[in-house]
Amino acid sequence: MKYKGGKRAGSVFHRRTLPGAMPGTLKTGPDAPHPVIRVMAWSKEEFVEETVESTARLREILNKWPMTWVNVDGLGDAAILQELAEIFKIHRLALEDVVNVHQRTKVEDYEHHLFIVARMINLVNGRVETEQISLFLGDSFLVTFQERAGDCLDPVRERIRKQRGRIRQSGPDYLAYAILDAVVDAWFPILEEYGEILEDLEDTIVVKPDSETVSRIHKIKRDLLVVRRTIWPMRETVNSLFREDLIETETQLYLRDCYDHVIQVLDMVESYRDMASGLMDFYLSSVSNRMNEVMKVLTIIATIFIPLTFIAGIYGMNFDPSASPWNMPELGWRYGYPAFWGLMVLLGMVMVLFFRRLGWLGSPKAEISDDRG
Amino acid sequence: MKYKGGKRAGSVFHRRTLPGAMPGTLKTGPDAPHPVIRVMAWSKEEFVEETVESTARLREILNKWPMTWVNVDGLGDAAILQELAEIFKIHRLALEDVVNVHQRTKVEDYEHHLFIVARMINLVNGRVETEQISLFLGDSFLVTFQERAGDCLDPVRERIRKQRGRIRQSGPDYLAYAILDAVVDAWFPILEEYGEILEDLEDTIVVKPDSETVSRIHKIKRDLLVVRRTIWPMRETVNSLFREDLIETETQLYLRDCYDHVIQVLDMVESYRDMASGLMDFYLSSVSNRMNEVMKVLTIIATIFIPLTFIAGIYGMNFDPSASPWNMPELGWRYGYPAFWGLMVLLGMVMVLFFRRLGWLGSPKAEISDDRG
Amino acid sequence: MKYKGGKRAGSVFHRRTLPGAMPGTLKTGPDAPHPVIRVMAWSKEEFVEETVESTARLREILNKWPMTWVNVDGLGDAAILQELAEIFKIHRLALEDVVNVHQRTKVEDYEHHLFIVARMINLVNGRVETEQISLFLGDSFLVTFQERAGDCLDPVRERIRKQRGRIRQSGPDYLAYAILDAVVDAWFPILEEYGEILEDLEDTIVVKPDSETVSRIHKIKRDLLVVRRTIWPMRETVNSLFREDLIETETQLYLRDCYDHVIQVLDMVESYRDMASGLMDFYLSSVSNRMNEVMKVLTIIATIFIPLTFIAGIYGMNFDPSASPWNMPELGWRYGYPAFWGLMVLLGMVMVLFFRRLGWLGSPKAEISDDRG
Amino acid sequence: MKYKGGKRAGSVFHRRTLPGAMPGTLKTGPDAPHPVIRVMAWSKEEFVEETVESTARLREILNKWPMTWVNVDGLGDAAILQELAEIFKIHRLALEDVVNVHQRTKVEDYEHHLFIVARMINLVNGRVETEQISLFLGDSFLVTFQERAGDCLDPVRERIRKQRGRIRQSGPDYLAYAILDAVVDAWFPILEEYGEILEDLEDTIVVKPDSETVSRIHKIKRDLLVVRRTIWPMRETVNSLFREDLIETETQLYLRDCYDHVIQVLDMVESYRDMASGLMDFYLSSVSNRMNEVMKVLTIIATIFIPLTFIAGIYGMNFDPSASPWNMPELGWRYGYPAFWGLMVLLGMVMVLFFRRLGWLGSPKAEISDDRG
Amino acid sequence: MKYKGGKRAGSVFHRRTLPGAMPGTLKTGPDAPHPVIRVMAWSKEEFVEETVESTARLREILNKWPMTWVNVDGLGDAAILQELAEIFKIHRLALEDVVNVHQRTKVEDYEHHLFIVARMINLVNGRVETEQISLFLGDSFLVTFQERAGDCLDPVRERIRKQRGRIRQSGPDYLAYAILDAVVDAWFPILEEYGEILEDLEDTIVVKPDSETVSRIHKIKRDLLVVRRTIWPMRETVNSLFREDLIETETQLYLRDCYDHVIQVLDMVESYRDMASGLMDFYLSSVSNRMNEVMKVLTIIATIFIPLTFIAGIYGMNFDPSASPWNMPELGWRYGYPAFWGLMVLLGMVMVLFFRRLGWLGSPKAEISDDRG
Repeated sequence: MKYKGGKRAGSVFHRRTLPGAMPGTLKTGPDAPHPVIRVMAWSKEEFVEETVESTARLREILNKWPMTWVNVDGLGDAAILQELAEIFKIHRLALEDVVNVHQRTKVEDYEHHLFIVARMINLVNGRVETEQISLFLGDSFLVTFQERAGDCLDPVRERIRKQRGRIRQSGPDYLAYAILDAVVDAWFPILEEYGEILEDLEDTIVVKPDSETVSRIHKIKRDLLVVRRTIWPMRETVNSLFREDLIETETQLYLRDCYDHVIQVLDMVESYRDMASGLMDFYLSSVSNRMNEVMKVLTIIATIFIPLTFIAGIYGMNFDPSASPWNMPELGWRYGYPAFWGLMVLLGMVMVLFFRRLGWLGSPKAEISDDRG
Repeated sequence: MKYKGGKRAGSVFHRRTLPGAMPGTLKTGPDAPHPVIRVMAWSKEEFVEETVESTARLREILNKWPMTWVNVDGLGDAAILQELAEIFKIHRLALEDVVNVHQRTKVEDYEHHLFIVARMINLVNGRVETEQISLFLGDSFLVTFQERAGDCLDPVRERIRKQRGRIRQSGPDYLAYAILDAVVDAWFPILEEYGEILEDLEDTIVVKPDSETVSRIHKIKRDLLVVRRTIWPMRETVNSLFREDLIETETQLYLRDCYDHVIQVLDMVESYRDMASGLMDFYLSSVSNRMNEVMKVLTIIATIFIPLTFIAGIYGMNFDPSASPWNMPELGWRYGYPAFWGLMVLLGMVMVLFFRRLGWLGSPKAEISDDRG
Repeated sequence: MKYKGGKRAGSVFHRRTLPGAMPGTLKTGPDAPHPVIRVMAWSKEEFVEETVESTARLREILNKWPMTWVNVDGLGDAAILQELAEIFKIHRLALEDVVNVHQRTKVEDYEHHLFIVARMINLVNGRVETEQISLFLGDSFLVTFQERAGDCLDPVRERIRKQRGRIRQSGPDYLAYAILDAVVDAWFPILEEYGEILEDLEDTIVVKPDSETVSRIHKIKRDLLVVRRTIWPMRETVNSLFREDLIETETQLYLRDCYDHVIQVLDMVESYRDMASGLMDFYLSSVSNRMNEVMKVLTIIATIFIPLTFIAGIYGMNFDPSASPWNMPELGWRYGYPAFWGLMVLLGMVMVLFFRRLGWLGSPKAEISDDRG
Repeated sequence: MKYKGGKRAGSVFHRRTLPGAMPGTLKTGPDAPHPVIRVMAWSKEEFVEETVESTARLREILNKWPMTWVNVDGLGDAAILQELAEIFKIHRLALEDVVNVHQRTKVEDYEHHLFIVARMINLVNGRVETEQISLFLGDSFLVTFQERAGDCLDPVRERIRKQRGRIRQSGPDYLAYAILDAVVDAWFPILEEYGEILEDLEDTIVVKPDSETVSRIHKIKRDLLVVRRTIWPMRETVNSLFREDLIETETQLYLRDCYDHVIQVLDMVESYRDMASGLMDFYLSSVSNRMNEVMKVLTIIATIFIPLTFIAGIYGMNFDPSASPWNMPELGWRYGYPAFWGLMVLLGMVMVLFFRRLGWLGSPKAEISDDRG
Repeated sequence: MKYKGGKRAGSVFHRRTLPGAMPGTLKTGPDAPHPVIRVMAWSKEEFVEETVESTARLREILNKWPMTWVNVDGLGDAAILQELAEIFKIHRLALEDVVNVHQRTKVEDYEHHLFIVARMINLVNGRVETEQISLFLGDSFLVTFQERAGDCLDPVRERIRKQRGRIRQSGPDYLAYAILDAVVDAWFPILEEYGEILEDLEDTIVVKPDSETVSRIHKIKRDLLVVRRTIWPMRETVNSLFREDLIETETQLYLRDCYDHVIQVLDMVESYRDMASGLMDFYLSSVSNRMNEVMKVLTIIATIFIPLTFIAGIYGMNFDPSASPWNMPELGWRYGYPAFWGLMVLLGMVMVLFFRRLGWLGSPKAEISDDRG
C-alpha cells in the first residue's frame, strides 16, 4: 500500500515528517509562502514598525530597542528560518515543530526561551481550517511564526501603535498573553456561527426536514470534532503557563481571564456537540414518525379498498346463470346492484370505525398539522 | 462570513467582547436598563434601607454604617459603574466580567475583595433564561450587580428587615452565603417543573404518543443541557469558597449546607437528563411497535384478499366456452358459484390459521388494548 | 409559573424547604406521623427497653445507663424534635436535615456528635420508595430518626435483646455500624427482585415479545436510576466514616466489611442497568427482525399475485372479437384457458425461484420457528 | 413482596447472608459438598502429599514441616471449617466470606494472615459460571478454600511434586502468586472461546444473518458483562499485593508479570465487549438494508402493475356500446387490443426508466449479490 | 469445551503460554523463523556492520567496541535465544515475554538492563497486523528482538552508517529513542490510509450508499479498535521512560518529542473512531431517509390507483340490467363512459392535492436530486 501523503484537501490530520527521518529535520512544505518578517519594536516612549529584508537589519533593531516583536508570515525558506533560529537561539526540535505545521497546542520550556504553539481557526468556504502560530518568548523579544499572511492579531497591533492599555508598559509575557487572548477570542464568532446553524437546523426539522438535513448535521458534528481536538489542548497549555517563571504575577491575572475564556469556548463546543447529537436523534425520530404516518395512510386505503375490490371482482365473474339457478342469482335480483352499494358503504364504515378504535384516525386535520409542525 | 453577534433570541451562548478587544474594555449592552442602586445598611441595633441617587450619598452611608449591602439592578450606564468600581476598588477585569453578563459561575480572589459570579435561572414563556448576579465581598460591605430588576432575594431582604436568624449579627460573608443559598434554592422549583413535565410525557407515551411528543422531549433535553451547563460550575465555586480567608468558620458550616443543595440539584438535573433520554428511547420503541402493528394489519388484509381477488379475476375472464369445451367449463357447472365461495372461505381460513401460527393474531382485542396501553 | 410543590405521588426528587427560607427552618411535613420514641438502654450486664412518653423520662434513662439507643419513628411534631435536639445538643442545620427527608446519604461532623444520613429502600406496590434514617452518634448514645414506623432493624434489636454477638459489649459506634449494615443488607433482596424481573423479561423477549415488554423495561431502567442515585453516596459515606475519631479500630474492621457490601450492591445495580439497556436493544432488534419478516410475507404474496391478477384482468376485458380478428383472439382458442393456467403456474414458479435466490425463502418452517424462538 | 433467595439457576448476583444477620454468621449452603482436606508439605529436600481426615493429623503435619499448603474442596461442614479457623487463627469475618461464596476479588490484611479472595471462571454448558477460591497466606502455610473439587491448579501441584522451578525453594508468598497466576491464566482460553464465537458471528452476519444471531450476540454481551465484573477487581487486588509486607521482593517481580496478564485479560474483555456492540450495530444496519431491499422490490412490482391492472379493469367494464357511440368505442376498434398492449409495454418501460433514475435498479444481479455478501 | 488455541488467522488477541505453565517457560512458536543476528558496532570514529553466525563472534565484537546494536530477526530457536540471554544477562521472565509475542507495550526495570516492548503495525492485504519488537537497553549495548525480517528501522540504520545527526555520538539510550521514534513514525501512514478510506466512504454515502458500505465501516471500526489497543500503552511507556536513570537528560528532550507524536497518533485514532461512528449514524439515517422515500412512492401510487381500480371493478360487474331498472343503469347512459373518465381524473387530482398538502410531493425533481445528492 503506497503512502500517498496528506495532500487531499480537507483531510483533518497530517503527519509530521517522513517516517524514520532524523529528528530536527527541516523540510519546508512545497507550497509554503516565502517568509515576510515584520518587526515592531518599542520602548516606553518610542515606537517603530517596519518590514525587514535582512537579518542584519533585524539584529540592529534587536540591539537598539528594549522590546521587540518579530512576526514571520510564511515558512517557505529554510535558510531564513535557520538564520532566525541562530539569532534567537531556537532549538532545532522547536524549529522542526514550527515548520511542520500540524502540532497540537502546547508549551515547551527550552533553555533560552519558552516555546508556545497555538492554533487559529478559520471558516474557508464553510469548511473549518486551522493555522498554526508558534511563539518564542524570550527576555526582551517575542517571535511569532505563522503559516501565511492574514491573522486575527490586528487589534493587538493597533493597541501597540496607539499605546492603548498596558501593552507598551509590559514585557513580552504580556504581549504573548495578548496574542493568545486574541487567538482565543477569534474562536467565539466561529462557534457562534455553528450555534446559528444548529438553531436553523432545529427549525428546519420542526417545519420540513429533508434528506439534506442529515448531511448538514453530519457535517457540523464532524467540524465540531475538529474544533474540539484543536481547542482542547489550549486549556492545559494556558494552565501550564501559570507555572512558568517568565510570566509575571500581574500577567497571570490576565492569563486567568484568558483561561476562563478557553473554558467557556470548550463549554460551547461541548454543548454544540450535544445539541448536534440531539438534533440527529430528533431528526431520526421525526423521520420515523413520518414513515409511520405514511404507512398508516397506505394501510387505511389498502385495507378499505382491497376487500371492496374483491367483492366487485366477484360480481364481475361470468358464471352462467342460465346453466343453473345456483350460479350468481344475485345478478338477476331486482335490488342486487343497490344492495351491493349498501354492502360497500357498510363495509367502509366498519373499517373506519375499526381504525378509529385503533387510534389511527384522530381527526385527519390534526394529523396533517402534526405532520407539518 | 459576517459576524452577526448574539442577537438571536434564545441563543444559548454568547461571546464576551469583540474579538481582540483590549482586556478590561467596558462596553455596556445597548438594551441594558439604567442602574438602580438600592442600599441596605445596619449595625447590630439599627437598620436603614434606601435607594440612593448619587455616589456621594453612597459614600456617606458606607462611612456611617459598619455593614452595607449595595444592590445594583441594571448595567446600562458605564459611568456609574466606573464610579462604583472606584468606591469599592473593583479591578477592571472584574468590572468587565460584571458587564459582560455571560460569565460562568466562579470565584476570583482580588486584592480588595472576593469576586463571585453566580447565575439565576428563570422560566420565561416556557423557555429557560439565565441572569448573572455578581457579588463583591469586602470586609464591611457586599456589592451585588444584577442584569435587571426582580430577583429571588426578597426572603433574604425580609430576614434583614425583620432581624430574623443571624443575618444581622454576622458579617458580609454570611450575607453572601445567604444570597448564594437563595439563588440555589430558586433552582429547585424550576427543576421540579421539568420533573412534572417528564412524568406527564411518560403518561402521554403510554396512552397516546404523537409527533409533538418528540418535539417536547427534544426541547426538555435541550433546556436541561443549558441548566446543567449553568449549574455545574457552582459546585466548584462553593467548594473553593471554603478555602477563602474571608469566610468565617461558622459560615463555612452553612456553606457546607449550601454545597449539599448544589449536589442535590446536580443530581436532579442528571436524573432528569437520564429520564429524558430514557423517554426518547421509550417513545422510539413505542413508534416502532406501532409501525409493526400497522404493517401486520396491512399484511394480513392484503395477504388474505390479494389471492382471493386473483381467483375472482379468473372467473371474470371472457374465454369463450362456446369455442372449446376446455374454455372455462367451470362457468357452466351447476354448483360452480357455490364451489367458488367454498374455495374462498377455505383459503381465508387457511390464511388465518397461518397467521395464528406465526403469532400475529393472538386475539384481536388484546392487540388493540396493547396498542392503547 | 406557579410552584406546585412535590405533591405528585411517585415523583423522584423533592425540594428541601421553601426557596430562600432561613437556614435551619423547621417545617414538618403536613402528613408526617406523630413521633414515637423507643429507647433501648443497656450496660454490660443489664438491659431495658421502653417507649418513653416524655423527655423527662428520657433524660432519666440517659443519666442512668452507660449506653442508650433512642429511636424516633415519625417526624410530625416540631416541639418534640426541638426538645430532643436540646437534650442531645443537635445543631439546627442537622435537625433541619432530619425533618426535610430528601437528603442524600452523608456524614457530617458536628461538635457534639457525628451526623449520618442513610436511606432505606422499599418496594411498595411494585414502585421503589425510599425512606430517610438519620443517625446522631455521641459518646454514650445513638439517636435515630425515621420517617415512619416499620424498618429493617429488627434483627439488630433482637441481637441487643438476646445479647448475641458483640453488640452489647461495644460502644455506640458499633451500634451505628450494625444499623448501617442492616440498611445495606436490606437493599439486596430488592435488587434481586429486579434481577429476577430482568431474567423473566429476557425469556419473554425470546419467546413472545409484546408492546408491554417495552413499558416494563422502561420502568425498570427508571427504578434502577432512582436506586443508583440513592445508593451511590453510601460508598463515600462509609469510606469517610473510616477517618472519624469516634469509630474505634475494631469497628473499622466491620465497617470495611460493610463497605464491601456497598460495593457489591453498586456492582449489582450497574450490572442490572447494563442488562436493562441490553434488553432494550435486544427487544428493538427483535421487533426489527419481526417487521422484516412481516414485510417479506407481504412482499412475496403481493409480488406473486399482483402480476397474475393483472393478466387475469386482461382476459376479462371486453374488446369485441367480432369487430376485428386482432381483438383478443386468445379468447376463442381451443386451449386458451389451459394455456392461461399454464402461464400462471410458470410465473408463480419463476417468482418463487427468484425469492429463493434472494434468500427470502429458506424453508418456511425454519422461518416460523425462528420467529418464535 | 416475598424474598425468594438466589435459587434461580444462572442468576448473576447473589446476596451474602440474610439481611440484618449478625456479622460473622457462618451459614453453609444447603447443597455445598462436604470438605475434603488435601495437604502438601515440603522442606527443601523432602515432600509429602496426603488427604487428611482429622484436624489432629493436620496439626501434626503443620508442626513437622516448614511449609504446608492446605487445600479444602467443599464448604459443606461448618464444624470442620471452625476447627480449621481455630488452627490458622482465621478471623470470623474472613471465615464468613469464605462460606458466602459470592465475594468480589479482594485482599484483606488480618493480624495473623493475609486473606485473598479470587474467582475462577468456567464455561458449563455454554454458560459462564464462576467459583470462589479463598487464600489465607501465613508465615509458613497457605490455606485455600474452594467451593467444589476440580480446579485449574494441577500444573502448580505438578511443579511442587516434580520440584520444577523455584516453587519448592520459595515461601508461601510465591505459592500464592503461583495459584493466582494459574487462575488468571485459566481465564485466557475462556475469553478466546468468546473471540472465536464473535468472529463466527461476524461471518454469519456478512453471509446470512437470521434472528438467532441477535440472541447469540445478546448472550455474549451478557456473559462478557459477568466476566468483566468478575475480573475487574483482580487488577486492584494484585496491585495492592505489591504493598504487602508478606510478599518478598523476588516474588514481586513475578507478581508484576501476573499483573501484566490481568491487564491483558481486561484488554481482551473490553475489546470483545466493543466488538459485540459493533456486531449488534452491524447486524441492525444489515437488517435495515435488507428491509430497504424488500421494500424496493415490493414497490417496484406494485408500482408497475397497479396502474396496468387499473387500465385492464377499465376495458373489463360493461358500459353498453350499443346504448351510445360514446360508450367504450375502443372495444370495437380494429386495433384496439394491440393498442392496449402497446400502452402496457410503454407504461412498463416508463416505470423502469423512472426507477433507474431513482437509482433503485442498478443492475438486478448486483443487488442480489450485495444482499448476499 | 476444548481449548483450540489462537491459530485462527486474524484473531486479535492471543494467549501467552499454556494456562498454569511455570513462569519463565520458553516455548518458541512452531512457525517462527530461525533467528538472524545482525550486529552494528561503532566507536566515535569507526563503524562495523555484520551478520554474526556464532555467539563467540558476538562476544568478540562486544568486547572490542564501546557501543553495539544487536538485532535479532526471528525467534525460532530457543537454544540461541538462551545463549543470547546468558551473554546479556536477560532475566528469564523477560525472555519469556520476548518469545510470547503478544505482549502489551511496556517498560520493565531489570537489574542489568531496561526491558522495553513496543509494537509495529502493518497493513497486510488490507488487514491490520502487529509485530512485537523487544528492546534490552544496557550500558553499552542495545539488543532488539523482532518476530521476522523486515521492519521500519532502515532510516535509523542509514543514520548510523552515514554518521548523520547525533546517533553515533550518543549512548544506547539515544539509539533506543531513535528506534521507538521510528516505530511511532511508521504508525502515521497507516492511520492516514484509514483517514482516506473514511473520507471516501463519506463521499460514497452522500452519492450512492450500498450494503457494502456498512461492511466497510464495520471493518474500519474493528481495525481502529485493534490499533487503539496497540498504541494506547505506548503513551504510558514513553512517559515512564522519562523517570529511568539510564535515559540521559539530552535524550529526554527527544523523548518529549516522541511523546508528542504518540499523543498526536492517539488523537488521530480517537478522531477516526469518532468519525467512523458518525459515518455509521449518517449511513443509517440515509437508509432511513431512502426507505421513507420508497414508502412514499409506493403509498402515492397505491393510494391513487386502488380506489380507481375499485370503481373500474364496479362497472365490470355483471348485474343484469334487463332484470331490473335498478341494476347498473349507468351502463346504458349516453355519457356513462365519459362521465367515468371524468370521475377518474377528478379523483386523481384530489389525491395529488391531498399528498401535496401532506408535503409528500414538493416537486418530483427535487426529490430525485435529494435522493441522489
